[in-house]
Amino acid sequence: MTVRAASRVPQEERTRAMRARLMDATVELLVERGFSGTTTTLVSERAGVSRGAQLHHFPTKNDLVVAAVAHLTERRGEELAAAATRLPDGNQRTRAVIQMLGDHFAGPVFTAALELWVAARTDDTLLEAVAPLEQLVGRETHKMTVQLLGADESQPGVRELIQATLDLVRGLGLANTLGDDTPRRRRILDHWAATLDTALHTDGGKK
Amino acid sequence: MTVRAASRVPQEERTRAMRARLMDATVELLVERGFSGTTTTLVSERAGVSRGAQLHHFPTKNDLVVAAVAHLTERRGEELAAAATRLPDGNQRTRAVIQMLGDHFAGPVFTAALELWVAARTDDTLLEAVAPLEQLVGRETHKMTVQLLGADESQPGVRELIQATLDLVRGLGLANTLGDDTPRRRRILDHWAATLDTALHTDGGKK
Repeated sequence: MTVRAASRVPQEERTRAMRARLMDATVELLVERGFSGTTTTLVSERAGVSRGAQLHHFPTKNDLVVAAVAHLTERRGEELAAAATRLPDGNQRTRAVIQMLGDHFAGPVFTAALELWVAARTDDTLLEAVAPLEQLVGRETHKMTVQLLGADESQPGVRELIQATLDLVRGLGLANTLGDDTPRRRRILDHWAATLDTALHTDGGKK
Repeated sequence: MTVRAASRVPQEERTRAMRARLMDATVELLVERGFSGTTTTLVSERAGVSRGAQLHHFPTKNDLVVAAVAHLTERRGEELAAAATRLPDGNQRTRAVIQMLGDHFAGPVFTAALELWVAARTDDTLLEAVAPLEQLVGRETHKMTVQLLGADESQPGVRELIQATLDLVRGLGLANTLGDDTPRRRRILDHWAATLDTALHTDGGKK
């Protein structure tokens, strides 16, 4: 048993590492070439994985891309959680939280997700994988934003303002895909943070 | 001269009508099949235009799609201008303006633009046509929103709140592409309108 376990673990690790390389390569190619330009041949070359091994784990492009969706979902969560640990406290916090979200949705991980999202719109197989994961990401990001802002969703309108904030950063993320929109985004989000602070405070005070 | 002019006009009209059918068919197919599923064969079938006539006017898919971008830009402007004439005055106006924008960005014309936008991200020829037109649409939509809301952009922060409003409806438009998001969008935009009314009024009052 000990010998078999010992030999099995490295094999599992190698498989896991190979799958991770394939997923990373898929995400990179989605950003660089878009969904239609992401071919299984390019992925295996980029990942340094033989075609045989790749086809064994992911027989079709859709299998590869669907697995990459899940991988990407995890990376988006990790990226946000890591950024959240670097946030300041005090009166600059709302601004920092909002800018963090804005930067996240303007980054390559959002771009790859956007490619899958748009492809899924007209591809039912992909939609089955993408839709529930996007809902999960949406819920998790919402929960995290509420916590980071210390918002009280029992107050009327607070939930909708948080939702609006997340739809706003998604819209800004989309605007950023045709060219670097960072200065405009930063300016808009600074003003939005001030408005949000007032709105959250006003709503809280009224009740 | 009179005879030649008379015979030329119907020909010009027929050509214009044929081009319009090709553009409409391209936009419809972008919505139904996405960018990669929009083939020149499908467009000519849908438009009821012979392959020869289509190829004469638009030798490649990119020619067709680039012309459709311009056509779409015009349709987006007309659609918004028509909706704007139906807006109420009085204290429900902000809400009505915001919901009008929300509905516009959740409609098929936005979906077709989104397909082009995402495809242009990784296609330089398409990007050259899409980017300036998107900037034009952005400027026009911004100007129209300012007018419809009667907002005073000389007040600090007002410009950024209008921009945020348009990026928000774009984000909500994207969210709507994976499934009907109308009830959530309406709720979010009602609260956004109230926040916007307060912010525009507060900023105005402070100066």
